[in-house]
Amino acid sequence: MPVQKVIYDTDPGVDDAMALFFLHYHPEIDLIGITTGHGNASVEITTRNALYLKERFGIEAPVARGAAGPVTGQDAHHASGVHGENGLGEVVVPEDIKAQAIDMPAHRFIVETVRKHPGEVRLLAVGRMTNLALALREDPEIAGLVKDVVIMGGAFGFNGHLGNVTPCAEANIYGDPQAAEEMFAAPWPIAVIGLDVTHEVLMTQHYLRTLATEAGEVGQFIWEISRFYENFYLKKGLAGISVHDASAAIYLVAPDLFETRQGPIRVVCEGIAFGQTIQRPANVGFPPNDWDGRPSHAICTAVKGPELLELYRETLLKAAG
Amino acid sequence: MPVQKVIYDTDPGVDDAMALFFLHYHPEIDLIGITTGHGNASVEITTRNALYLKERFGIEAPVARGAAGPVTGQDAHHASGVHGENGLGEVVVPEDIKAQAIDMPAHRFIVETVRKHPGEVRLLAVGRMTNLALALREDPEIAGLVKDVVIMGGAFGFNGHLGNVTPCAEANIYGDPQAAEEMFAAPWPIAVIGLDVTHEVLMTQHYLRTLATEAGEVGQFIWEISRFYENFYLKKGLAGISVHDASAAIYLVAPDLFETRQGPIRVVCEGIAFGQTIQRPANVGFPPNDWDGRPSHAICTAVKGPELLELYRETLLKAAG
Repeated sequence: MPVQKVIYDTDPGVDDAMALFFLHYHPEIDLIGITTGHGNASVEITTRNALYLKERFGIEAPVARGAAGPVTGQDAHHASGVHGENGLGEVVVPEDIKAQAIDMPAHRFIVETVRKHPGEVRLLAVGRMTNLALALREDPEIAGLVKDVVIMGGAFGFNGHLGNVTPCAEANIYGDPQAAEEMFAAPWPIAVIGLDVTHEVLMTQHYLRTLATEAGEVGQFIWEISRFYENFYLKKGLAGISVHDASAAIYLVAPDLFETRQGPIRVVCEGIAFGQTIQRPANVGFPPNDWDGRPSHAICTAVKGPELLELYRETLLKAAG
Repeated sequence: MPVQKVIYDTDPGVDDAMALFFLHYHPEIDLIGITTGHGNASVEITTRNALYLKERFGIEAPVARGAAGPVTGQDAHHASGVHGENGLGEVVVPEDIKAQAIDMPAHRFIVETVRKHPGEVRLLAVGRMTNLALALREDPEIAGLVKDVVIMGGAFGFNGHLGNVTPCAEANIYGDPQAAEEMFAAPWPIAVIGLDVTHEVLMTQHYLRTLATEAGEVGQFIWEISRFYENFYLKKGLAGISVHDASAAIYLVAPDLFETRQGPIRVVCEGIAFGQTIQRPANVGFPPNDWDGRPSHAICTAVKGPELLELYRETLLKAAG
């Protein structure tokens, strides 16, 4: 596979950092930009964290700071109970970070970078979809100029998995449903890695300990930032941490590890189902409905978990070795 | 099992008629009333059909005519594409039916009958939930006076099954979501037989032909009314007819054929998810949400299809033999 140009739209975030390492170390990925947004923490914190990770792990990609809240102007919800108040599981983040964000908002960076490399850029979005929606609003033509869009977000009821914020809504979509609705309405190809599959892949404490001992500094760092996160999942009765954002990163290079279903997707923007993602499967007939005329996208319905975990481990071990 | 007093709230309807025969012929069921409503056809037609079935098959239970449309006053949607314009697959229904509906609306008949037999009555509702909601509005205390409520309706995403009107909504709930929302808010025990299980049980043409040849007049009648209905499913690519209402009727006497999940249920009453049923599972933790404080109900998540079909067949054959 030729090297892939990837812009990583993220809200680090523990599992965001874990996905970032995969992107950084995988030889087939050319990480050409990191854009930040509100989500796991405020955009101030997620941008600070992205700059810290860039500096500490020698990541060359520029960081562009993005939206502080949803496109609707509503308040942002932060997941500090999952990622800690500092977004990185309460590990100490130094105050004197020299790396700086570029002087351009995230959505404009996306537009300019896509226009610079027409047909080449893959957008990997693992936070709220605000920056993507703002980029589309500024320049709708980018939908025809990206290579594709891969997101972590949503929940479609496969494998018995529900939402994680409400019984039907996943946090990334719940945090800005209107942005997600606009993103799914655009005619770019989107692959959706939702809770249907990310809740199927668990990194156990044993797995994380192996990374800590075998994958050098980055492995040790993952161990440290995942202590808080692991505790959150333990309290929910899970014997490991769900692999959300890294699953989406891995989809970029190993889509064969996933099964998908095609069909237009819409997002509920009001009422008790606020933030729910609903796909109309392409191969099922329905009377005229609100999905008609919308572009078809792929949702992941199943995943080869062990192979995914092994690919992640191998990638980090090679980088450390 | 002692004999069960059942009020059957129905909108016949091809599969409604099939469920009615099960109720009529099963020795453990004492059918003490039939209430009609809008749904598969207008309430005029469904009441006429109920009276026809009562007269032709010697069913003693009184028929009470119910609501003509949703509690909100919105227009009723009829499923004539599924059940035919006359609600019984276009078989000839005679004009001179002598049986008459009682002089009491369905919801009042429900209230009075429940009050007459406190703790004994089981409500089986397989159409729109309008009559049940109107009964609750007239006399909320009936929620503590029925034995239980069993409904055919809803879709919760199990077994890959979606809605049948929209990608997320099932027809009985879609036809009056507000009524269903009020029904689920009441503290009576409800068991929900949704598309999750009814789409798992198919009566093939071979099965129906066996009924036609072995189950006497009623088997022959089922064959006749199911031709139109079967054709609807054939056009959808299914090699048989889904057993919707009869599955709910069978739940009354054979709940062990089903697996269930407990938790409060709410209904989406606006937007693209209009008519969707969403359960918050009792055993999963969530932040404070719109399901808090609501009574828990059971939804069916799996069904033993072959055993269910055999029980239906046996019941009709014994009656014929």
